[in-house]
Amino acid sequence: MTMDIMPKGHVTSPMGFQAGIAACGVKKGKDDLVILYSECPTGGAAVFTQNRAAAVPVQISRNVFRKNEVRAVLINSGCANACTGEQGMEGGMATQTKTAQTLGLKPHQVALASTGRIGMPLPLKEILAGIPVAVKSLGRDHGSRAAKAIQTSDTHLKEIAVQTIIDGKTVTIGGMAKGSGMINPQMATMLSFVTTDAAVEISFLRQSLQEAVDETYNMISVDGDASTNDTVMLLANGMAGNDPVDGQHPERGKFMEALMAVNHALALAIVKDGEGATKLVEVITKGFASRKDARKAAKEVMNSVRVKTMLFAKDGYWGRIIGSLGNAGVDFNLKEVALTLTDSQEESVTVMDRGTPQNYSEERLIKVLQDKHIRITITAGTGEGSARGWGCDLSHDYVDISGFYRQLP
Amino acid sequence: MTMDIMPKGHVTSPMGFQAGIAACGVKKGKDDLVILYSECPTGGAAVFTQNRAAAVPVQISRNVFRKNEVRAVLINSGCANACTGEQGMEGGMATQTKTAQTLGLKPHQVALASTGRIGMPLPLKEILAGIPVAVKSLGRDHGSRAAKAIQTSDTHLKEIAVQTIIDGKTVTIGGMAKGSGMINPQMATMLSFVTTDAAVEISFLRQSLQEAVDETYNMISVDGDASTNDTVMLLANGMAGNDPVDGQHPERGKFMEALMAVNHALALAIVKDGEGATKLVEVITKGFASRKDARKAAKEVMNSVRVKTMLFAKDGYWGRIIGSLGNAGVDFNLKEVALTLTDSQEESVTVMDRGTPQNYSEERLIKVLQDKHIRITITAGTGEGSARGWGCDLSHDYVDISGFYRQLP
Repeated sequence: MTMDIMPKGHVTSPMGFQAGIAACGVKKGKDDLVILYSECPTGGAAVFTQNRAAAVPVQISRNVFRKNEVRAVLINSGCANACTGEQGMEGGMATQTKTAQTLGLKPHQVALASTGRIGMPLPLKEILAGIPVAVKSLGRDHGSRAAKAIQTSDTHLKEIAVQTIIDGKTVTIGGMAKGSGMINPQMATMLSFVTTDAAVEISFLRQSLQEAVDETYNMISVDGDASTNDTVMLLANGMAGNDPVDGQHPERGKFMEALMAVNHALALAIVKDGEGATKLVEVITKGFASRKDARKAAKEVMNSVRVKTMLFAKDGYWGRIIGSLGNAGVDFNLKEVALTLTDSQEESVTVMDRGTPQNYSEERLIKVLQDKHIRITITAGTGEGSARGWGCDLSHDYVDISGFYRQLP
Repeated sequence: MTMDIMPKGHVTSPMGFQAGIAACGVKKGKDDLVILYSECPTGGAAVFTQNRAAAVPVQISRNVFRKNEVRAVLINSGCANACTGEQGMEGGMATQTKTAQTLGLKPHQVALASTGRIGMPLPLKEILAGIPVAVKSLGRDHGSRAAKAIQTSDTHLKEIAVQTIIDGKTVTIGGMAKGSGMINPQMATMLSFVTTDAAVEISFLRQSLQEAVDETYNMISVDGDASTNDTVMLLANGMAGNDPVDGQHPERGKFMEALMAVNHALALAIVKDGEGATKLVEVITKGFASRKDARKAAKEVMNSVRVKTMLFAKDGYWGRIIGSLGNAGVDFNLKEVALTLTDSQEESVTVMDRGTPQNYSEERLIKVLQDKHIRITITAGTGEGSARGWGCDLSHDYVDISGFYRQLP
């Protein structure tokens, strides 16, 4: 490890970043509007939801990041501005323009992100009134307050900052995220904002973020549904003074490692933060024909409702794991497959090896399944492709929270 | 309609088909072994699970139907013979050989189907002992007893027979199925056996079955997991004496219609038979670029856990339906999308039209959602492709039944 986790680090820990917050009335009596701002020009990279019904802020921000002069992000919680028709698009653009004017920027320098209920009209008046308040409150110490304000019903604050040395300069990467999936699925959007004072060449920045997203957010699963609003943004303002990191930079590995660590921490915080969930489940797939196949296999197992209910019930019916593997649409020879379940104490039970059920102790297996951290390792024996993903179980509480969320406090 | 539904019709209603049943001890005190037998040579078509961890009976039967001399099917319930390694394959072949010997057939004339727990060793001794008992009991009147014996924890008998006239001859198509998904998900296999005394040319028979499966079983969803054992078989023995139905036969449409009706009835019986399910949900997709896209869209909506829990809770949060549509991986322009929810009394509420949320009455929407039959109609405005599928909601009982099935009576 060539990096340090900062105590109480947050999204404005890197130099030159500020956050401003307002309570504009969309969420009663709570902060619900955030402006994330860089004091100087940044390089920006972003990854957005693949959902074809992408929300207005996603549509607008795609253009912003294409132009790559982003200086600020306006984030509102309480309304997703998705499925809102023309009113939503006009409203989104109005909030972008107002933010730019208030900050002395151009509209294409302001990105948007929203989380909240789909189909609800954008509360435009409230947000427009909140923007000057948020701008007025801009400051370098407001990272944690911002992380709180972007949440919907998350139970834990999701923020982190790490530091590493590049070209002899201290480089900081900070981040905040919201998303809980199970706890409040009408607002199941995942938003993540990562900032760094490192100087990074733009194409390397984009590639690094995509790689980090592929290994982290894209490998977590709560219930298999992608939101209309999912967004990860990364802003790099270069204030650390290092030589710009690119594909030839001798210390690019340190930057990648630190970036991966920040995103990994935020992604796992999202999986863990489902009140309906009783377990964190790690799925490791090895020996598949390709990394792509291994990823598909891990995702299919993570997303299987049958596997999730089995884990919730702490039941040793591992046949369901093999059954879901068979549905992943990847090639393997069942005669080569091994399956092992492991708990956080590294107690493990191999239930299948080379396609043959093993003589394991049912009692030991049930004991492993009692743990709150379960690792499922599937080995295919087909090739060298491997992957790792994280999910959770599906409980009675999930049905309550997902179905009856209006009756929740 | 050019066909009649037979009162008390079943899988041996068509001429020349017999069923034999035995209680071999795999399911305590219950019939658990069935032989379906044709008195004369048949043409046979079958569609099997796409699961890559396909069970032994699926692997064996694929070869049987390739050779196309099938005369009998051995069906056992209680053990899936999936993930059973070499022992399972040897055992499956031994039961095939024993059935053939007892009936005076060759092994490749006997197909196999199994349903039950995955990973449980095949109870070979019990099944081998049961085969002569089942053969001895063969009779034309045992269709309904057979339909009962192949079930696991289904609550309703799933059988039907229809008649039509082809070339002036009465042609009968009968069928039986098992499968309940939610009620007993460790045995969630869907098995369906369809018989007919019509003479049908083999390539037309295969094509007709594939079309029927695509429109029926392949468009139902309980929880999105395909079993290792799913099987649909169709045997046609020609005893009705019609000219063989092929792609040029002037009355081929009547055969197709009757075949579709039998499979449609059996498929819907499976969806309805989930104790965890409180609603039958029909999803109609129209105006997509292709039929394939329309099917993908309907399936994504049917399979969405968020949509399922919303329907269980009778909550009008339709944004989730659009959100799941956006995840289907099909092209559409959100500005063209319309969404209507309809109950069995044809009360309907259009919540979105041309991409814009409508001013509907929330009260009326909630009233529609109280019904036990909900139709979701999604119109995309992109092309002419349409599809129809059936699913159900996801309830607390599902979690109990799926997770804690061992504690069920």
